[in-house]
Amino acid sequence: MSKDSRPGGRSARVRAAVHRATVELVQESGADKVTIPAVARRAGVNPSSVYRRWGTTAALLADVAAQQHEEGAPELLGDLRGDLERTAVWTLADLTRPGGVAFFRAEVAPDVDDRRAGLSECLRRVSGRFRIALEAAAERGEKTPSLEQVLDRVVAPIYFRVVFSIPETDEDYARALVGELCDRG
Amino acid sequence: MSKDSRPGGRSARVRAAVHRATVELVQESGADKVTIPAVARRAGVNPSSVYRRWGTTAALLADVAAQQHEEGAPELLGDLRGDLERTAVWTLADLTRPGGVAFFRAEVAPDVDDRRAGLSECLRRVSGRFRIALEAAAERGEKTPSLEQVLDRVVAPIYFRVVFSIPETDEDYARALVGELCDRG
Repeated sequence: MSKDSRPGGRSARVRAAVHRATVELVQESGADKVTIPAVARRAGVNPSSVYRRWGTTAALLADVAAQQHEEGAPELLGDLRGDLERTAVWTLADLTRPGGVAFFRAEVAPDVDDRRAGLSECLRRVSGRFRIALEAAAERGEKTPSLEQVLDRVVAPIYFRVVFSIPETDEDYARALVGELCDRG
Repeated sequence: MSKDSRPGGRSARVRAAVHRATVELVQESGADKVTIPAVARRAGVNPSSVYRRWGTTAALLADVAAQQHEEGAPELLGDLRGDLERTAVWTLADLTRPGGVAFFRAEVAPDVDDRRAGLSECLRRVSGRFRIALEAAAERGEKTPSLEQVLDRVVAPIYFRVVFSIPETDEDYARALVGELCDRG
């Protein structure tokens, strides 16, 4: 590890400042208005450093979303239903926090050059935690739904309802989706 | 009915030309790049006519999407499962035709002023045909799933999979979603 990339080193400080500036700008004016020069100005760093490290606004937004996602990830407790419920509630919280849908929108925006890459990354992030919970249960010898079923029956309705601002899309609703999948298959 | 709004009258011709121009521009450069001056130029009409009639780009896109949607709507044949299957396949086709997701993206775009209105309209359009099929079955005295269940179990997964470009999102898949809902509840 170079001196620059060690935690607390200059590189980590730049990354933190750039992430913070990005989150602020997304919350203030929406992810589609964020530009690298604006982020650099807000973070007090040279735009060329941001371009060198992240390349594009889409890549920067994806990196910020990935980190925010990881930070709040729930601990898995080894009970499949409870783990899926906690992960569903966390997915909902992730999407409904300020700027959450904005990040999603930025990733599905048609003018993002590396859209395919952004989408796979977004889908990987969305499905990753569910996959871990399912794999852990399968290792314990439990019968589990497939990841595809979890995406169709739990994740897709949460996204659909948040994007369309359908009322009563809350934690109870997220848990009920898991309950229905686990109880009725 | 005024002379201008009768089918085949001047107003209808302007609407058809503006719709055609909008569809072409969406397919060429994406819904987020469409502007009223560009549409007017392509349609050979005065921009002020377009502003007067539709007001905003979002309203114009919503009108075009609504009409395209209506045109391809499947006939209901009076068999609930078949009607839901046909409507699901049509929803998928509507979303995957050239420009289909672009229209959806434009409607969920964060910088659309009347976003809430656009979303409700989009949701109304998406759910309208399913509602008709469910109401017809209920009138025949059949037991039906709720519209909410149809949105969660059929429409949401179709949208999710199209937006995230998940492979094998085809007619068989759309029909299987309906089958699972009808067979297992």
